[in-house]
Amino acid sequence: MFEELREKAYLANMRLTKENLIKFTWGNASEIDREKGVMAIKPSGVAYESLSPENMVLIDIETGKQIEKGLRPSSDLPTHLVLARNFNCGGIVHTHSRWATIFAQAGKTVKAYGTTHADVFYGEIPCTRAMTKEEIEGEYEYNTGLLIVETFKGMDETTMPAVLVRSHGPFTWGESGDKAAMNAAVLEEVCMMAAFTELLGNTKPVSRELLDKHFLRKHGKNAYYGQ
Amino acid sequence: MFEELREKAYLANMRLTKENLIKFTWGNASEIDREKGVMAIKPSGVAYESLSPENMVLIDIETGKQIEKGLRPSSDLPTHLVLARNFNCGGIVHTHSRWATIFAQAGKTVKAYGTTHADVFYGEIPCTRAMTKEEIEGEYEYNTGLLIVETFKGMDETTMPAVLVRSHGPFTWGESGDKAAMNAAVLEEVCMMAAFTELLGNTKPVSRELLDKHFLRKHGKNAYYGQ
Amino acid sequence: MFEELREKAYLANMRLTKENLIKFTWGNASEIDREKGVMAIKPSGVAYESLSPENMVLIDIETGKQIEKGLRPSSDLPTHLVLARNFNCGGIVHTHSRWATIFAQAGKTVKAYGTTHADVFYGEIPCTRAMTKEEIEGEYEYNTGLLIVETFKGMDETTMPAVLVRSHGPFTWGESGDKAAMNAAVLEEVCMMAAFTELLGNTKPVSRELLDKHFLRKHGKNAYYGQ
Amino acid sequence: MFEELREKAYLANMRLTKENLIKFTWGNASEIDREKGVMAIKPSGVAYESLSPENMVLIDIETGKQIEKGLRPSSDLPTHLVLARNFNCGGIVHTHSRWATIFAQAGKTVKAYGTTHADVFYGEIPCTRAMTKEEIEGEYEYNTGLLIVETFKGMDETTMPAVLVRSHGPFTWGESGDKAAMNAAVLEEVCMMAAFTELLGNTKPVSRELLDKHFLRKHGKNAYYGQ
Repeated sequence: MFEELREKAYLANMRLTKENLIKFTWGNASEIDREKGVMAIKPSGVAYESLSPENMVLIDIETGKQIEKGLRPSSDLPTHLVLARNFNCGGIVHTHSRWATIFAQAGKTVKAYGTTHADVFYGEIPCTRAMTKEEIEGEYEYNTGLLIVETFKGMDETTMPAVLVRSHGPFTWGESGDKAAMNAAVLEEVCMMAAFTELLGNTKPVSRELLDKHFLRKHGKNAYYGQ
Repeated sequence: MFEELREKAYLANMRLTKENLIKFTWGNASEIDREKGVMAIKPSGVAYESLSPENMVLIDIETGKQIEKGLRPSSDLPTHLVLARNFNCGGIVHTHSRWATIFAQAGKTVKAYGTTHADVFYGEIPCTRAMTKEEIEGEYEYNTGLLIVETFKGMDETTMPAVLVRSHGPFTWGESGDKAAMNAAVLEEVCMMAAFTELLGNTKPVSRELLDKHFLRKHGKNAYYGQ
Repeated sequence: MFEELREKAYLANMRLTKENLIKFTWGNASEIDREKGVMAIKPSGVAYESLSPENMVLIDIETGKQIEKGLRPSSDLPTHLVLARNFNCGGIVHTHSRWATIFAQAGKTVKAYGTTHADVFYGEIPCTRAMTKEEIEGEYEYNTGLLIVETFKGMDETTMPAVLVRSHGPFTWGESGDKAAMNAAVLEEVCMMAAFTELLGNTKPVSRELLDKHFLRKHGKNAYYGQ
Repeated sequence: MFEELREKAYLANMRLTKENLIKFTWGNASEIDREKGVMAIKPSGVAYESLSPENMVLIDIETGKQIEKGLRPSSDLPTHLVLARNFNCGGIVHTHSRWATIFAQAGKTVKAYGTTHADVFYGEIPCTRAMTKEEIEGEYEYNTGLLIVETFKGMDETTMPAVLVRSHGPFTWGESGDKAAMNAAVLEEVCMMAAFTELLGNTKPVSRELLDKHFLRKHGKNAYYGQ
């Protein structure tokens, strides 16, 4: 059962490799079925070339319990579940992609230095605070989720579908797992360009008007990009 | 009709992907038929792997109107049209290629640090001023074209076939769409090398004589490069 | 004889090329059979595309003597032998991979800036002191091994399977040649990200708690990552 | 005639593309037949995918005259000829490879920061002075050759088979065109690593002893690397 959900979760994970965001088994994507309250997620530590729709792991979002016997889910599952419960999204992605991870390691937000950024992310991409000893030694992956939710207090996660977990790496989300994976790919590109924008001497983001123009050209009821 | 024009526009867009200047649907190329006053341009938001000569969009350059029913043109069409009307060229290209975009985001011109640059660009590659609130909130893409034309006041666009639109990315042009795409590829290479030339400590461009030597070796009536 | 050992050494060398850690003939991997006291190692100066299980060179670990007639072993053999005799490992790798070599050339340790690092390396990756004139002009490759062992005095090489030999490049090891090669690949990724973490302004490593959490999540008796 | 010489020149040019040192038609390799006093060199402005042994251009080294009717030789021919007449080598290469060109544009020599460098280049890789107005406006390519020869006054070109022509790019040479191309590939790698060695804060080269050890391990009568 849940063939379609598994298939979508599988394709979202495949998108991550296609976009060169994955090294070894690092990273994972999940797909959410809101009606049934079920998430399909990558199994833990399995090589991407061994993935198939069948070995995606099904989880009840409310209880966090595995629905069928099978492989163990990604160790990042508790983070995915907190985000699924708190954010308006249909899929979630975690990677260790190089440039997003570099910003996370540097503990830096990613300012909107250009229209490439503004086309997808409506402002400065946040970076969480460092986790406390208690958060790390307690339910670490669950607490990672709570930290992300805390970071987004007062923000709209539907117009800012990415976060950098400090010293760790990015999480992204979107209407689907595939969209979350695409956002992870754009994030990577935007971080690479932001790094060198700063190294070449600019640390001032674009104007509010340019940010509005580009984000709203592609999102919301007045969008006019595409067919 | 306009089979040849469509074909050329298609090939110019394909050149952009071949030269690794394109991520997702970002960027576009157009080809101009000066006799007929018609431009063929990439459709908006269509994946490069789905492009064909048939889905190139035909536009009357003077009126800006679409000639046949079909897909919607690139949202950057108004910029292409302003350039087509004001510049002596047969094709225009816009990309978000990494290194050119980094310079645009940094708000920096690209100095001629070497002969690779001088072979194609006859001097410092300009970067526009930031757009005003009025320009952004008005006819944004059209105003982008006007801004480029303003930036080239007193310059010869046939010997400087590239500009960086501040906080956005590069536009290039040439005798054809293919040449414009080639210029975009050289621009990317030149920007990458200029970035690290500066990071290694040099900010002084080449001498006037070296610039003349290399540009004129490949362009104009005394050129002696090639067969 | 030693077909399995040769095969494993061959595959470890192949892993190095697959992970893009090798240019030309630079670098080598060895596999150790502890019961027999034998090491299989890459022949010297042979192109990776010409390698086969058959041309791996068999060496008696205690005496350092070649067991069968055949190609000459890697000129780094004496370093491998010192490590095999002193470290608890089943395989050893040396490369000139770009980013690890850059840190070696800069004479810098690699701090644990993120969880990608902490998942594999339990702390700061050491860089040796410079070798003395006597060490260089004497038995150079053998002395390189002794220098690595000296650098690890008081450290546990099983939780820190990598070292940078100053002005030279990385050595890594692991339970097998394949694991040593994987560690070389992670080292390369971690060094690339550490370089830009520092260039973006952060030189403070992760907290002790985060280091413990991630390393012990994947290693030791309480590990819970994977199937 | 000169089939073997043409074939070797062709293969040297192909090596350049295989090692990713070439963009478009930039760069060229030549092969020298010392007995006959003939050089085979890439034709000017021809795409690398269109090259064949047949379209290599044959030149009399002493007179600089083309031996047979055919394509025009590389515009860099006069530089190749000066080097062929003055240097002990069997092949010459010129590229615009990224990192070597960056050092040329920065006007910097490449210090020996590690053993990768010392294995091939016996010391600091020189960068020429800037060319004068007279040199540029006169026989430019010929004067480029003279400038390189001037730069090597008092140096041994057989142990330092590379130079950076300031604001331009690298020339390399070797016992054959293929060896010259290999040296160009090592130069590129070494420059990339040197750039980041400096960006990470080290500007001190390796010791004399380490330089001697590595260079002489691979070159000269006491070499012991390889089969």
